Amino acid sequence: MAERSDFVREITPPDQDYSQWYQDVVTKADLADYGPVKGFIVIKPAGYAIWENIQAGLDRRFKATGHVNAYFPLLIPESLLVKEADHVAGFTPEVAWVTHGGQETLSERLAIRPTSEVMVGEMYGKWVHSYRDLPILINQWNNVVRWEKVTRPFLRGTEFLWQEGHTAHASGEEAMEETLRMLSVYHEFLATELAIPSRMGRKSESEKFAGAEITYSVEAMMGDNRALQAGTSHYFANRFAQAYGISFLDQDGTEKAAFTTSWGMSTRVIGALIMVHGDARGLVLPPRVAPTQVVVVPIGANASAEVAEAARRLAKELSSGLRVHLDDRPEFTPGWKFNEWEMRGVPVRLELGPRDLAAGQVVAVRRDTGEKQPLPMAGLAGQVAALLERIQGDLLERATRRLAEHTHAVGDWAAALPILSERQGWVEAGWCGSEACEMQVKAQSGATLRNLPLEQSAPATCLVCGAKAQYMALWGRAY
Amino acid sequence: MAERSDFVREITPPDQDYSQWYQDVVTKADLADYGPVKGFIVIKPAGYAIWENIQAGLDRRFKATGHVNAYFPLLIPESLLVKEADHVAGFTPEVAWVTHGGQETLSERLAIRPTSEVMVGEMYGKWVHSYRDLPILINQWNNVVRWEKVTRPFLRGTEFLWQEGHTAHASGEEAMEETLRMLSVYHEFLATELAIPSRMGRKSESEKFAGAEITYSVEAMMGDNRALQAGTSHYFANRFAQAYGISFLDQDGTEKAAFTTSWGMSTRVIGALIMVHGDARGLVLPPRVAPTQVVVVPIGANASAEVAEAARRLAKELSSGLRVHLDDRPEFTPGWKFNEWEMRGVPVRLELGPRDLAAGQVVAVRRDTGEKQPLPMAGLAGQVAALLERIQGDLLERATRRLAEHTHAVGDWAAALPILSERQGWVEAGWCGSEACEMQVKAQSGATLRNLPLEQSAPATCLVCGAKAQYMALWGRAY
Repeated sequence: MAERSDFVREITPPDQDYSQWYQDVVTKADLADYGPVKGFIVIKPAGYAIWENIQAGLDRRFKATGHVNAYFPLLIPESLLVKEADHVAGFTPEVAWVTHGGQETLSERLAIRPTSEVMVGEMYGKWVHSYRDLPILINQWNNVVRWEKVTRPFLRGTEFLWQEGHTAHASGEEAMEETLRMLSVYHEFLATELAIPSRMGRKSESEKFAGAEITYSVEAMMGDNRALQAGTSHYFANRFAQAYGISFLDQDGTEKAAFTTSWGMSTRVIGALIMVHGDARGLVLPPRVAPTQVVVVPIGANASAEVAEAARRLAKELSSGLRVHLDDRPEFTPGWKFNEWEMRGVPVRLELGPRDLAAGQVVAVRRDTGEKQPLPMAGLAGQVAALLERIQGDLLERATRRLAEHTHAVGDWAAALPILSERQGWVEAGWCGSEACEMQVKAQSGATLRNLPLEQSAPATCLVCGAKAQYMALWGRAY
Repeated sequence: MAERSDFVREITPPDQDYSQWYQDVVTKADLADYGPVKGFIVIKPAGYAIWENIQAGLDRRFKATGHVNAYFPLLIPESLLVKEADHVAGFTPEVAWVTHGGQETLSERLAIRPTSEVMVGEMYGKWVHSYRDLPILINQWNNVVRWEKVTRPFLRGTEFLWQEGHTAHASGEEAMEETLRMLSVYHEFLATELAIPSRMGRKSESEKFAGAEITYSVEAMMGDNRALQAGTSHYFANRFAQAYGISFLDQDGTEKAAFTTSWGMSTRVIGALIMVHGDARGLVLPPRVAPTQVVVVPIGANASAEVAEAARRLAKELSSGLRVHLDDRPEFTPGWKFNEWEMRGVPVRLELGPRDLAAGQVVAVRRDTGEKQPLPMAGLAGQVAALLERIQGDLLERATRRLAEHTHAVGDWAAALPILSERQGWVEAGWCGSEACEMQVKAQSGATLRNLPLEQSAPATCLVCGAKAQYMALWGRAY
């Protein structure tokens, strides 16, 4: 019988080397593996099942807000890519190029999509003729490739999976409404499903998406206090419409360029999940996206036939409404199993031994707090469901408190510098709006302007130059 | 008010030019559009919604048979691709090659996956060490690229979407069981969800998948009597395991190569759906995969407020269990709407006019037969659900009868030739097993050996050479 009670030893303590801790969790919790080409990961079943739950949660919200799914081609001709100048300048350095198809050398090289504004713009240009054709509200689930120099599983990959929504509208107001609506959808989704609080705001000019008029983001705080941009929503005004000919005959009889948006969230949020909730023992998954919500472990050195049978019955009963796994492998001790499922982040463990059985109860153990409590077998499904709800709520509450505690309203640079350079948290402070001040923060502290929060308190003076501030800005080191 | 009562005029009659009819239906029913690169289509929302239903139906079955999903990288190094000789010989002619990433020229070119046996083989080689690691039962949903010369929307694309299952087992028996299990899953799925009957069987040596020991297929009959290979399931024995090092220490203490399988079904089946059920008026969708199952159309030259309100209420009521669309656009006549929804293949139309309202009924019209029947408003949801079930069953029955009627048990070549060359149907006949006879059929009639049906009646003599037959074989022209 295998006995290796301390899986934790295999995981580097997060306070010793956070980056190594992250990679250990990814590997030990079996979420992903490294593929043969640098920067390309295999998302293993345990990781992909989380992604499936994320997809379901987002897709439901997209459909509820009137969107439909479609699929656009993987390869984009170079001549098409170059039509929007800012966009091509931003993306060309990281494009993978196809130059040969079968035995033939292509007359024009083709980019593997780094994102699909160009392809979608070209097609919408064909599809839109009249105001009656608008709005178009399409999302697509796909893979994209960006030739990144430094990669990390989930956080930054040469290939990643995501959804990209692309919409076209008759007016700028409507497109802006859409842009902000989808930003809110991301914000609400992160909180409700992933128990991740985030700050919605506008990106500075230097940080916005290549080709966008305005980019909004949701920024989440990781366990090492760094920021992670978890989703973005872009307002393009009619930049792409002009570049790709998306124009329509309006009700007033004049030809107009449409207004477009795009918005995306990727497998990167799996990295956020790990870093927001994970701990020294491994992964901690919020119940709503946990592929397995409850693991049932029969205990006793040799679990008796009676206990084994009761555990089976229990697991089956709970399976009608919850995602349950029964771990009755004879070759592992209960202690080994406890550690393994903790490492894999399963929110609730139910232990069942002979004495529990006699007492008509099970022992429920919370992954997030380690708290143990006996639960009566009678009405167990309801109790466990309530416990999962409580865990989901507690995770969000804890992360929300943490975000607030590590966001420092600091007015002067001397106080802000150590917070940012030593990664004690984020700084929320006035900004004059000049790129010079923005660059100075980066040069001195390594922090970037995360966003200009939608909720703006009255700003006083610029954190850097002391001049009158235009905005309140959120600064932090970022992934 | 737009009045263009005959959409059908826009669709080429199928008996005049079947291929053009197909392309018209794809375009007019808004299923797909042509992208800027030859062979790459955009799957539009109406087409993609069918694919989502297909995915759901398949994914449920894969999970019920113990499989989990994962995601493997898009790009495969050339050095990896070449390890299995037959496989690389089969696929190299149609591979798209990435030679540049960002500003750098790659030291080794990378293939966009045409299929993932190679990538999966490489990873399974890393993951499998002991018999305890087996079986691995993984599926993935993704896009693949094959540089095809002649392309047709859904039927043959340079890029297409599909699922590819990849499993590894400790024994050949178990791998063969899996291969046949998944073949059966495809067969049952096609019948139950798409109302498409198919013939399961084994491919000949010349038609099997590059690198496979044995390939099985499900073959369906299209409206022009041509065959379409709707899904394949491959048994690799330990060919890939040997090439990619998938070996394990067995219980008996010896090191063994694993046995692997793969199986796939693609967006091609959307083409099959169109051709099996479609007619001169356009698409006919089986209710189970129809994105819209019921369209409610209020009628009367100017639908009164009362009728409009009743239609809204009705649509809302039915929406609780069915996929319902209310078409209350004021700018189109009911006749226009009828034609449009027929073209788009919606299984049931419910018409509601002032007289119907007074009589407490609606008129239900079946897309497949055109049959009209009044249905009482009271208990309508149940009646409509039953009607949809009936349509689903009738579609399968009709297609099954058609397949049987156009499969000819013919013993001699003189009788078989006109059937095959004039595309009157398939021929089921004895085959000696020689490639020479197989090639002769192809050369003379254009037909190929579709498969050797799993249900084998006792064969007599070879259709071609008259020698003693080894198998009963199914011959037909194919897509």
